[in-house]
Amino acid sequence: MATPPPASARRLLPLSLGLFQGALLLFFALFATYDEPSAAATQAEDGTRAAEHLPSLFPLFQDIQVMLAVGLGLLLAFLPRYGLSALAHNFLLLNVSTQWALLLQGVRHGRLRLGLHDVLAAEFAAVTVLISVGAVLGRTSPCQLLAVAFCEVPVYLASEWLVITQLGVRDVGGTITIHVFACYFGLGVSKALFGTERRPAHPKETPTPRSDLLALVGTLILWVFWPSFVAAPCQLGDAQHRAILNTFLALSAGAVTTVVASSLLESGGKLSPGHLQNGSLAGGVAIGALADVPITPAASLALGSLSSLVCLLGFRFLTPFLARRLALHDQCGIHNLHGLPGILGAVASAVAVLLSHVDGSGVAGDPWGCGGGRQALWQVAGLAVALGGSLLSGMLTGAVLRLPCLAPPPEPLCFEDSLNFRIQEQAESPGMGDTAEEVALKEQV
Amino acid sequence: MATPPPASARRLLPLSLGLFQGALLLFFALFATYDEPSAAATQAEDGTRAAEHLPSLFPLFQDIQVMLAVGLGLLLAFLPRYGLSALAHNFLLLNVSTQWALLLQGVRHGRLRLGLHDVLAAEFAAVTVLISVGAVLGRTSPCQLLAVAFCEVPVYLASEWLVITQLGVRDVGGTITIHVFACYFGLGVSKALFGTERRPAHPKETPTPRSDLLALVGTLILWVFWPSFVAAPCQLGDAQHRAILNTFLALSAGAVTTVVASSLLESGGKLSPGHLQNGSLAGGVAIGALADVPITPAASLALGSLSSLVCLLGFRFLTPFLARRLALHDQCGIHNLHGLPGILGAVASAVAVLLSHVDGSGVAGDPWGCGGGRQALWQVAGLAVALGGSLLSGMLTGAVLRLPCLAPPPEPLCFEDSLNFRIQEQAESPGMGDTAEEVALKEQV
Amino acid sequence: MATPPPASARRLLPLSLGLFQGALLLFFALFATYDEPSAAATQAEDGTRAAEHLPSLFPLFQDIQVMLAVGLGLLLAFLPRYGLSALAHNFLLLNVSTQWALLLQGVRHGRLRLGLHDVLAAEFAAVTVLISVGAVLGRTSPCQLLAVAFCEVPVYLASEWLVITQLGVRDVGGTITIHVFACYFGLGVSKALFGTERRPAHPKETPTPRSDLLALVGTLILWVFWPSFVAAPCQLGDAQHRAILNTFLALSAGAVTTVVASSLLESGGKLSPGHLQNGSLAGGVAIGALADVPITPAASLALGSLSSLVCLLGFRFLTPFLARRLALHDQCGIHNLHGLPGILGAVASAVAVLLSHVDGSGVAGDPWGCGGGRQALWQVAGLAVALGGSLLSGMLTGAVLRLPCLAPPPEPLCFEDSLNFRIQEQAESPGMGDTAEEVALKEQV
Repeated sequence: MATPPPASARRLLPLSLGLFQGALLLFFALFATYDEPSAAATQAEDGTRAAEHLPSLFPLFQDIQVMLAVGLGLLLAFLPRYGLSALAHNFLLLNVSTQWALLLQGVRHGRLRLGLHDVLAAEFAAVTVLISVGAVLGRTSPCQLLAVAFCEVPVYLASEWLVITQLGVRDVGGTITIHVFACYFGLGVSKALFGTERRPAHPKETPTPRSDLLALVGTLILWVFWPSFVAAPCQLGDAQHRAILNTFLALSAGAVTTVVASSLLESGGKLSPGHLQNGSLAGGVAIGALADVPITPAASLALGSLSSLVCLLGFRFLTPFLARRLALHDQCGIHNLHGLPGILGAVASAVAVLLSHVDGSGVAGDPWGCGGGRQALWQVAGLAVALGGSLLSGMLTGAVLRLPCLAPPPEPLCFEDSLNFRIQEQAESPGMGDTAEEVALKEQV
Repeated sequence: MATPPPASARRLLPLSLGLFQGALLLFFALFATYDEPSAAATQAEDGTRAAEHLPSLFPLFQDIQVMLAVGLGLLLAFLPRYGLSALAHNFLLLNVSTQWALLLQGVRHGRLRLGLHDVLAAEFAAVTVLISVGAVLGRTSPCQLLAVAFCEVPVYLASEWLVITQLGVRDVGGTITIHVFACYFGLGVSKALFGTERRPAHPKETPTPRSDLLALVGTLILWVFWPSFVAAPCQLGDAQHRAILNTFLALSAGAVTTVVASSLLESGGKLSPGHLQNGSLAGGVAIGALADVPITPAASLALGSLSSLVCLLGFRFLTPFLARRLALHDQCGIHNLHGLPGILGAVASAVAVLLSHVDGSGVAGDPWGCGGGRQALWQVAGLAVALGGSLLSGMLTGAVLRLPCLAPPPEPLCFEDSLNFRIQEQAESPGMGDTAEEVALKEQV
Repeated sequence: MATPPPASARRLLPLSLGLFQGALLLFFALFATYDEPSAAATQAEDGTRAAEHLPSLFPLFQDIQVMLAVGLGLLLAFLPRYGLSALAHNFLLLNVSTQWALLLQGVRHGRLRLGLHDVLAAEFAAVTVLISVGAVLGRTSPCQLLAVAFCEVPVYLASEWLVITQLGVRDVGGTITIHVFACYFGLGVSKALFGTERRPAHPKETPTPRSDLLALVGTLILWVFWPSFVAAPCQLGDAQHRAILNTFLALSAGAVTTVVASSLLESGGKLSPGHLQNGSLAGGVAIGALADVPITPAASLALGSLSSLVCLLGFRFLTPFLARRLALHDQCGIHNLHGLPGILGAVASAVAVLLSHVDGSGVAGDPWGCGGGRQALWQVAGLAVALGGSLLSGMLTGAVLRLPCLAPPPEPLCFEDSLNFRIQEQAESPGMGDTAEEVALKEQV
């Protein structure tokens, strides 16, 4: 049996988390108020804005919460003996990263006038962490995952500020700022953490039909609520309506294309559960940069189909290639679900800008708000900034993760809930009063 | 070992789906735009209507998506070794049928000004397919299921046009147009497909406590969101409020009655998981035709109780009778959940019309918008049209499904995920570093 | 094999439930109408209020339904062989208690003008039953659970009227009226039912990794929608916005603190699944009495952290102590999740009142609507009333539950679905046409 990590490493998790909660509390006590008319009532006119938008924003916020806590958690539970850890770590990282992003936003503005919009923005920052750690799922300790969160959130906020505020990139659904960024950050972490060592397939990595079923339920939850994710930051009215329609069409076309492609790529025309779990969502990743733009319904369908195709080709050919050539370890295939469709969506947004420039006005005037040629350039520049910056910072973070004090799990205990959870021993022998029926039942359970 | 279908059959699925996606893309490129003020701005006044209704419609739309993709999928996962297939086929059919219905609606109107309302209407068309295939779940190939979708959606659209637009039948929750139609279409398919051959109980058909648990979760998701399903097409205001209350009351009374009836019908006073999974929802099926009418809360309770009772009596007596006498195969018992409660609801709507006619004005004027006697006749006529038309077209569709090129699964491989999915082989021997604890765990998993 | 209960006991369940449905139907037929402008239109001006608030209330109502039917049901499914029963009994009690509360409200007012608000209020009454029975989960028959529902709902309605209407206690999220009340009612039931007899750990009580996973999914569903639960009864606008923010912050801080505390309390720094399932929610319990008050974001964080800490300390030290000293049986640990955090929240609300009195005006005037000192007293008085009244009435109810006619399950059949459900026998021998692959699969399932 592999030796467990020393006691000191075991203490690092509660210690660091406890310190973080204390610091957060202190910061909130000093700088945070509600975004509402204060007693002094100096901003009476726009003071109630946050509360006014509540009926239209709150249902979307709840949808997104379901996606992140339940949908993504279940999708990560495809490892049959690591489901509890996947769900729990995802939940912990969601909370820590959201709080950390709120704190950093407050630091940047000198104070925090907290509204639901701020929480939503902080959750988008947390999404990048949840995606990135998919690359190293099952081979990392909670302390290592927390280190990723603490490093990634500030870089994301800087990257998002640079890409959206400075370059003026259009990206309502986070194709570039969230998905591309998170993917290459995660790959950078994985590369720097695992180095050039090639890991053989671990006996506990293989999904069972049951764990695949739960992961598929997670996919379906993400699939259903993806339009809410894209629509939440949109302007109300036509733009939001378009965002919902475009996202729905891309996801729906992507789901059908996934079946087509998986059936062609697998031997005997069967489907691969993993393909279905990931490919069905690729359309949502790609459409983000374009969702609120009137690109026509047909373009949404085409982009959704294409991104699912790219995603599955990535799983079939690129992931094994990268593993062989670069010893790149990508446990959940985030490169195929977030990287490739994200790049595709970013390029598509640049092309859409150019096309809308060429034919004079586009479907509804000049939706990009400035000259098409220059805007196309900014879209590509934003992609380059997000990709390059995330890869570099991810590798630095991965180097930090090699610190022995972060207690990386020993290889034989990877993908194993018992490393992180106290699993109670079962009464092995048939209990008192067990009938034959009950014993048979016990074997099925 | 049964011989797998030949390679050509394996190719039919991606080929037909790929062609469908291509045709859909072409049609959308030529005829589809968004439902919003165009650049020409000729319909400025009502151009923004779709977007204006978004805050009240979109949450209901998302609820319905959860029902169809997650709730119904889990309910169908009661077959213990067919869960992945049930969930995935349900998801595929949802997408294909919705797209197909959008295309057909566009063909009918010459063009498609796409709004969320259209997507919702197309999803209602898809629901009929998802219900119908329940009759043949586990004994059909994906190609056969696609054939059902391609045949059923146009017939549904025609039937819905005839019943609602031409006959003026009131049916806001789809009791007649969706549930009755889908049920008898599915039974027609089953009868024509399996002929007079009686199938013995398959050893893999029996649910386990675990698959029953997941199916019950699916039932609960459907139960929770059923009011959204009925309320979405309603007029905002009092009608929608009534629809929500009536549906809730019918579902709640139905759930309690299900426990009463199941406990009486089963030996030893125990409950049957299958009764609970289906009976709890029967009230929602029956209330649809009446939901927005002020029938009084007591009538909703009574209708809910009665339909759950009818549903369970169907499971206990009618299904075995039909299987024995007509060799009718109904895997999920759709006749009990959708057929009988649907007929009950349609008859109840006719009776309610007559009663509101008799006592002069009804609770709130003449809610049916025309003379009660004649409207009662139309309700019954609508039921007859939906039932007869669906049975006939379903049998024709079932005859199509007998084509060998659709690759029906061989009997021994029915109810088996490995027919449709590449199930990875597990590492059989205990892996390196396995401790006694881990081996014990592995056996539980 | 233990002898099953006699046939007469088996009949009590359908008999009592059937009678209840009949009485409900009769009452509704005589006294219930919709809350809307009647044909006579005498209340034209405020007649449509219920329908007008629908777009903002209905999404919250659906969220709460998901919490109660799906989230809480799954959380209770942590007993590996009792999942079906836990889910089904929870669902039955939800429906019966809601209907019973509607009936009692109608009796009190002489008639029932039914609106969605009334259903919501009735569901809050049902929540208390669902919480209370957690203390005796797995060791009670359905008849006993129904007896709890029939006794608890009227007492809750009286207690809620006394605490909120008469004493003027502020408790928008039900910290005192729901959580504290339900907890001590349940503990009273448990104490009176099981007496001084100490039950040894039952071999079927131990969760498996799989049942823990499902229970964690239930926790996450409750965690996500908790802000809806607290916000639904709030005034629209700033108060609701604050309630959402405060609840989110308390839950998020509580989730992180749970990991810290569980890691410190368990040997080897591992986490306990049970801690995670319960501690993550404690913040939501405690914040209820304060959620709509501008207590500052920092206070919400602190209260959330503290209540999770108290919850886990309760699991680690208090529950074993009470079991040893008082032979108090608390299967789900409701004292730790609802009792201790509820008391903490009530005391915190009194302190907040005092503090807002001391510094003159509070953050936004005098949010409590009356002098702080007196209101603080009322908060504590409300806590005492809810706690004392529920403990006493719970013990009386527990005495009723000892009636042999309620068919308590024999000890060896506790925690066993087969007591309540007809579990179909599996085909034990490998079926026809089984290949080696299939047999291997069957063993995994």
